[in-house]
Amino acid sequence: MSKIVTLTTDFGLSDPWVGVMKGVMLSIDPEITFVDISHSIPPQNVLKGALCLGGIKNFFPEGAVHLAVVDPGVGTTREPVIIKTKRYFYVGPNNGLFSFLDSPVEKAVKIANMGLLQPQISATFHGRDIFAPAAARLFSTPMKEFGPAEERLEKLSLPEPSIKENVIEGEITYVDRFGNLFTNITAENLRDLHARFPNSRLEVKPPGGKTISGVSYYYHSVESGELGAIVNSLHLLELFTPNGSAGECFGLKPGDAVTVRFVPAK
Amino acid sequence: MSKIVTLTTDFGLSDPWVGVMKGVMLSIDPEITFVDISHSIPPQNVLKGALCLGGIKNFFPEGAVHLAVVDPGVGTTREPVIIKTKRYFYVGPNNGLFSFLDSPVEKAVKIANMGLLQPQISATFHGRDIFAPAAARLFSTPMKEFGPAEERLEKLSLPEPSIKENVIEGEITYVDRFGNLFTNITAENLRDLHARFPNSRLEVKPPGGKTISGVSYYYHSVESGELGAIVNSLHLLELFTPNGSAGECFGLKPGDAVTVRFVPAK
Amino acid sequence: MSKIVTLTTDFGLSDPWVGVMKGVMLSIDPEITFVDISHSIPPQNVLKGALCLGGIKNFFPEGAVHLAVVDPGVGTTREPVIIKTKRYFYVGPNNGLFSFLDSPVEKAVKIANMGLLQPQISATFHGRDIFAPAAARLFSTPMKEFGPAEERLEKLSLPEPSIKENVIEGEITYVDRFGNLFTNITAENLRDLHARFPNSRLEVKPPGGKTISGVSYYYHSVESGELGAIVNSLHLLELFTPNGSAGECFGLKPGDAVTVRFVPAK
Repeated sequence: MSKIVTLTTDFGLSDPWVGVMKGVMLSIDPEITFVDISHSIPPQNVLKGALCLGGIKNFFPEGAVHLAVVDPGVGTTREPVIIKTKRYFYVGPNNGLFSFLDSPVEKAVKIANMGLLQPQISATFHGRDIFAPAAARLFSTPMKEFGPAEERLEKLSLPEPSIKENVIEGEITYVDRFGNLFTNITAENLRDLHARFPNSRLEVKPPGGKTISGVSYYYHSVESGELGAIVNSLHLLELFTPNGSAGECFGLKPGDAVTVRFVPAK
Repeated sequence: MSKIVTLTTDFGLSDPWVGVMKGVMLSIDPEITFVDISHSIPPQNVLKGALCLGGIKNFFPEGAVHLAVVDPGVGTTREPVIIKTKRYFYVGPNNGLFSFLDSPVEKAVKIANMGLLQPQISATFHGRDIFAPAAARLFSTPMKEFGPAEERLEKLSLPEPSIKENVIEGEITYVDRFGNLFTNITAENLRDLHARFPNSRLEVKPPGGKTISGVSYYYHSVESGELGAIVNSLHLLELFTPNGSAGECFGLKPGDAVTVRFVPAK
Repeated sequence: MSKIVTLTTDFGLSDPWVGVMKGVMLSIDPEITFVDISHSIPPQNVLKGALCLGGIKNFFPEGAVHLAVVDPGVGTTREPVIIKTKRYFYVGPNNGLFSFLDSPVEKAVKIANMGLLQPQISATFHGRDIFAPAAARLFSTPMKEFGPAEERLEKLSLPEPSIKENVIEGEITYVDRFGNLFTNITAENLRDLHARFPNSRLEVKPPGGKTISGVSYYYHSVESGELGAIVNSLHLLELFTPNGSAGECFGLKPGDAVTVRFVPAK
C-alpha cells in the first residue's frame, strides 16, 4: 500500500519549516509520498485552512493521511488530534481546522503518547515536533496507541443558505486564485428548488450588481466583462467572469450576500 | 521504469487544485513521481505557459508525461489532447500550450474515451477530471485507446528574428524571476552571422539604451549597474545586469526590440 | 537506503528551473526523493540562503544530500563544492552558502570531474549543469572522484552576541513568514547568564520599544498587540506578537539590536 501524506499549512514556502516537517517524517518512514495541498493559508486563518482541506474530498487514495497545521494556539491547551473518517486520517490541532471533512468522523484521539513524538517538544513548532511524527507513524501504529479518545472536536461552520419559497439567500465563502467566487449555495439546493418550481428559470443576484440570468454550463458562455454563475467542480454555485477576476472586477468578496430566485419561465 | 509526471499550470499554490490533481493520479497509479514545473503561469496566459514548457527540453528521462493546464477555454469545444514526441508525452488542452516542445510531434490524439477519465466531468476543472486521469493512465494504456487522431494542433508562434546583411532584429520574449530578459535570437543565429562576417565584433542594442559591446561569458564580466548580453542556458541571447533585475533597472519587457549588429573589428 | 535530495535556491517557482534540475537528477537516478526547502531566497542573497539551510539541522535522515544554489558568482572562479558533515552532504557554490551547517565539516572537495556533470556546461545555470548531476551521483560515486580537496571554504558569520556582566547585547537576524523575529541570542546564552545570576529575572529590550518582562513559554501568554519574547524551535530568542507580525507591527527588522538584562528578582 502506498503511504501518502498531504500537507496543508500557513507556513509559506520561504522558510524551511515545511521541508523540515518532511525531513522528520522521512526519518521515521522513508517510503512516504508527500503531496502539498497549500502552504499559503493566510497566517492563523483556521477557517480558510478548513475550507482548503474541504477541497480534498474523495480525490485521494484510501488510507491517505492529511496533515494540517494552522495553529494560532500552538503551545496552549488546544489538543493535538488524529481524526479518522471512512477513507482518511487527519492530523493537526483541534481548533476547527477539520470542520469540512470528506465524510463524517468515525473516531478521534488526542495525541498524548510522547514516545511517538519528537524527543523534545518545542513550544512554537508542533508541526515538526508533534504532528509530523504522528502522521508518519500512523502507517505503522494503531490509532488508539496515540492517546485517549477525543470526545469534543472543535467545529467551525459556514452560514447555511436560507431557503424561503422560491428564494435562496446565500453568501460568498471563498475566492480562489482566479478570482472566482464560491458561494455556500449547493447544486443540491438548486435542484431541490427547481423540482418545486419546475416551470421556472433562475436569477442570481450579487450585491449591488445586475441580475445574472441563468446558470452557465461553461465559463465562455458569458461575454467578456460580464459576471456569470456556474455550478463548479465542488458542486457549489460560483460567480465568475471569463478570463478575469470576478472578485476584483466586481468588488465582491467572502461574506457578500448572493440571492438566487426562481421566477416564472418566460 | 520510473513513472514521472511533470505539472505546469496557472492554478497557483494557494488553492488545493494542484494537490487534488495529484490525488486523482495517485488513486490511479500510486507509483507516480511528480515534478512541479510551475503553477505560477499568469492566469489564462497560454503563451507564457507554452514558453515555460519550452524549458523542459531533453532534461527529463524518456517516457516522462508532461501535464499542462492553462485553459481559458475549459468546458468549450477546444479538444483535450495527448501529444507524443520522440522522448515524451504531453497532456492538456489543444490551445497552443504545446507550441514549443522538445522535438517534433510524432503523434497526437484527442482524449475522448470517457471510460479512462473521472466518472463525472465538471465543466470548470478538466485538470482534475480529464487531464490528470489521462496522464496517470498513459503509463499503462496505449495512446490510441484514448481517442481518435488529432489532426490539427493549435500552434502559437513567437516572432522570428529577421536577419538582413549584418543585422539581426529580434525581440524580448520572456523575463525570468531574476529579471533576466530572454530574446528570440538564438546562439545559432549569432554563429551563422559570425561565420558570414568573420572579422567582425558584435553590438547589441536594446531600445532607448546604450549599445552593449560584445557578448559576455559570465554575468560578472559586466560592471554592476550596467546592462550586458549573454548566451543563456537555453542557447538564447539574454540581456542581464549583474545581481539585479535588467527588466526593472532598464525598463525593458517582453515585446521590446533588440538589435544585434556585426561591425568591423577594431 | 533512501536517496533524499533537498533543494534550497533563489530560483523562485514561476520559471521551470527548479523542475529542470529535478529532471536532470531523475535522469541520473530515478529513485531520488526530493524535498523542497525553499526556492524563495531573495535573489543572490547568500546570507539568507545560508540561514535557511541552517534550519535543516538533524531533522533529515542520515545520508541526505542538501543541494543549494544561491549563486551570484555563477560562471566566475568561485568553486563548486561538495561538503560532508557527520550526517549529510551539501552541494553548491563555495560562496558562504554553507556557513551554518548541522555539524562541523568533515571533508570538502571541489567539483572538477567533468565526466560526472552535464555534457555541456552553460555559463549561467550551474544548478542544472554542475550541482544537480553532482548531487544525483553522490548516491553512487565516492566523494573523492568528484575532484581534489577544497581547503578553503568561504564562511559568512553572524555577529555573535556580546555578554558583559548581566547584559547580553544581540541582534535580530531573521524574520520568518509570520513576522516572528529570530535573534542571535541562544537558549544557551540565557541559561549561562541565569546560572551566574540565579536570583534574577530577565528583561528583553528591543530598540525604541518598551521592555519585555520575562520569556514566555507559548505565544498566547502575551496579550494581543503586545510584543513578547520566547525561546523558539531553533533554540533562539525570538520576538513575536500573538496572531500578528512582530516585524510589521513594531517596525523591527534584521540588524536591529536586542538587549537582554538579568535584573534582581522582585
